[in-house]
Amino acid sequence: MAETVHMIDSEVFLAFSTYATIVVLKMMLMSLMTSYFRLTKQVFSNLEDTNLAKTTEDRKKLVRVDPDVERVRRCHLNDLENIVPFVVIGLLYALTGPDLSMALLHFRVFVGSRFIHTVAYVMALPQPTRALAFGVGLFITFSMAYRVLTTALFL
Amino acid sequence: MAETVHMIDSEVFLAFSTYATIVVLKMMLMSLMTSYFRLTKQVFSNLEDTNLAKTTEDRKKLVRVDPDVERVRRCHLNDLENIVPFVVIGLLYALTGPDLSMALLHFRVFVGSRFIHTVAYVMALPQPTRALAFGVGLFITFSMAYRVLTTALFL
Amino acid sequence: MAETVHMIDSEVFLAFSTYATIVVLKMMLMSLMTSYFRLTKQVFSNLEDTNLAKTTEDRKKLVRVDPDVERVRRCHLNDLENIVPFVVIGLLYALTGPDLSMALLHFRVFVGSRFIHTVAYVMALPQPTRALAFGVGLFITFSMAYRVLTTALFL
Repeated sequence: MAETVHMIDSEVFLAFSTYATIVVLKMMLMSLMTSYFRLTKQVFSNLEDTNLAKTTEDRKKLVRVDPDVERVRRCHLNDLENIVPFVVIGLLYALTGPDLSMALLHFRVFVGSRFIHTVAYVMALPQPTRALAFGVGLFITFSMAYRVLTTALFL
Repeated sequence: MAETVHMIDSEVFLAFSTYATIVVLKMMLMSLMTSYFRLTKQVFSNLEDTNLAKTTEDRKKLVRVDPDVERVRRCHLNDLENIVPFVVIGLLYALTGPDLSMALLHFRVFVGSRFIHTVAYVMALPQPTRALAFGVGLFITFSMAYRVLTTALFL
Repeated sequence: MAETVHMIDSEVFLAFSTYATIVVLKMMLMSLMTSYFRLTKQVFSNLEDTNLAKTTEDRKKLVRVDPDVERVRRCHLNDLENIVPFVVIGLLYALTGPDLSMALLHFRVFVGSRFIHTVAYVMALPQPTRALAFGVGLFITFSMAYRVLTTALFL
């Protein structure tokens, strides 16, 4: 990490910015997908969200749990659990000055794996599609963490 | 992103640091609010958390779900889902060297929208207060992501 | 924050990189622990995850909730709620140029507290072990936020 100052201007850092933004935007789309399912299926978590229904009795019935909504929410939580580590460790990795081609390989494979993970989760594709996509993403983040710890270790 | 090195010292970066810290502290307060509701209402998730009750029978009864606690927890999770993208994309946005006034506008509106979102969620204010606060925050993050991708795109 | 450019190369930043990576890796291990419990106890959230069972009837029975799995998932969510603020505020704190000894104290105590928190949560150790570990981590993050806001305040 001796020349990190110059690294922030580097192509590696631009690539990190691009892929991190794309994958975080993908994660944010899960919020919109949850809202879409909640509205089209009329499934809510809060009584105050049901104000399009007429009677109080009707409104209470709309506060319920739906398997499709829960599926999207599990996918969203899995994104948080995996994309946040990628962003944190990826930022530090970008500052260690890796080769551009190696960095691009890491970023592209990770982002691709998370898009496949989302499709596999939301469409309930047969396993091990989703498990493999999850595992590839995990492996990429571990690989970047390995470089950060071997380059910058200071305990 | 040609001059990002100088940007870290800039007023935009100081403003980002200030608003990111404030909104992350707000998110952390949700943990304390959950603890407060759990203790005052005696509602716990784990048997080992109920050790102020006397008998084992009494303790088991305290491991339960409470609508007020769940409401605070949903608000906390919504914070995670929205404030994490703001922090990540906001950091990259600050490094693209935006005008200070534009940056301040983004940061202030986002942080304001999340405070309104929390009040609307915890107090169960009538919709669309909470939905609007959520949407404004989302829009701000999308707007910053647009600048990052148009300034720093490197695929 | 006058000399932040030079700070990115500093020992404080290397120390932050090291401890942030370690504690994020610890958080990621919760995913693997959840998978381990799900597979060994045969407890799943999705019907498509149960494809090792033979009949459809057997498979539906495996989509269920298990207290041990839920415990690990609560621990994982608590990590997200606390480690994400540490990483964000810790990064900004590292850029304020604190004394190396003070910074190391903050990073080490935080990371130690989260390891203790995980052990206490997963093994259901008697309280207040887990509550204290949680509180110490929260205090460290508040202490770093205090320095960021007093050093870099720009509203």
